[in-house]
Amino acid sequence: MKNTVDPEQSAEASTVESHDFAASVKSIPDFPIPGVVFRDLSPLWQDAEMSKLAIAQMAHDVVLSTGKPDVVVGIESRGFIYGMALALHWDIPFVPFRKPGKLPGLLLRESFQLEYGSAELECQVGAIDPGDRVLVHDDVIATGGTAEAAQKLIEQTGASLVGFSFVIELRDLKGRDRLSAPVFSLITY
Amino acid sequence: MKNTVDPEQSAEASTVESHDFAASVKSIPDFPIPGVVFRDLSPLWQDAEMSKLAIAQMAHDVVLSTGKPDVVVGIESRGFIYGMALALHWDIPFVPFRKPGKLPGLLLRESFQLEYGSAELECQVGAIDPGDRVLVHDDVIATGGTAEAAQKLIEQTGASLVGFSFVIELRDLKGRDRLSAPVFSLITY
Repeated sequence: MKNTVDPEQSAEASTVESHDFAASVKSIPDFPIPGVVFRDLSPLWQDAEMSKLAIAQMAHDVVLSTGKPDVVVGIESRGFIYGMALALHWDIPFVPFRKPGKLPGLLLRESFQLEYGSAELECQVGAIDPGDRVLVHDDVIATGGTAEAAQKLIEQTGASLVGFSFVIELRDLKGRDRLSAPVFSLITY
Repeated sequence: MKNTVDPEQSAEASTVESHDFAASVKSIPDFPIPGVVFRDLSPLWQDAEMSKLAIAQMAHDVVLSTGKPDVVVGIESRGFIYGMALALHWDIPFVPFRKPGKLPGLLLRESFQLEYGSAELECQVGAIDPGDRVLVHDDVIATGGTAEAAQKLIEQTGASLVGFSFVIELRDLKGRDRLSAPVFSLITY
């Protein structure tokens, strides 16, 4: 394994040197529907060095405010991309929250509203212990419906939700107002 | 960041010490349909040390056979979980191949047959260069339909497909017979 970036150093450097993560986001007008600007993280995912800095910065922001969590939850599906990397960064479990019908076994389930219709998020019973301090990760927070469903799932487990970590926050949509734990965003629009 | 496992050491150790990765897989009968045994990777994802060993072993097997790739493709959505970790391991780009309607911009598309009906996989134009040596990662290979669609997408880009890396291979379903590049599997059933 190449380790050109020492994780300790990147976490440190990121508090001193400010990285222009937004330069690795491509804005695509009128996707998925007219009038919406889609923030595409593909350029960031294609840049391993910048991705490592982004993960280190997200982890740093969380630890500084709430301490190291016990579990990282990644929300399907783009929350899986950096979610596992965050869990590996901290040497802690990764737990996926998935769309209905994907997870086997006994499940917890929460429904939430989308702009048109509704959706559901599921979690395996026993994946999170009541004593766990849980961080929820997703790529983007918009209106916050999915994040709020994740919050309710964690409430069902009896665990403590210590925060939400997003790569991108769309501030105008006020998603964070629906959440009862601190919100950490790497890039805001 | 904690670094209790030195990545170089794990890659090295994995060639000497054999890890029982299968012990971190839970077999669930009759999911998603009666008669099918679902191989659940949740216990592996919840074990950060074992996940690091798994990623190091997968990377080791690929490098030993075909050399380091230039790009890791992760197939939506469970291929995202270790796909980005593999890309970070090698310091190379991560590119998601996604279900229809998720990726913005100009796209390449391949249709493939499922047991009932058909599905599609998409890739952004320009995400992979014609000269790239590409590794495709997914969590499980069963009948190989999705992997074959990924292979065809890579053919469309003009890049070289150097191999497929799966956490689990269901040998009886002969998915590897549909693929034209080497298949590396951490666990086989």
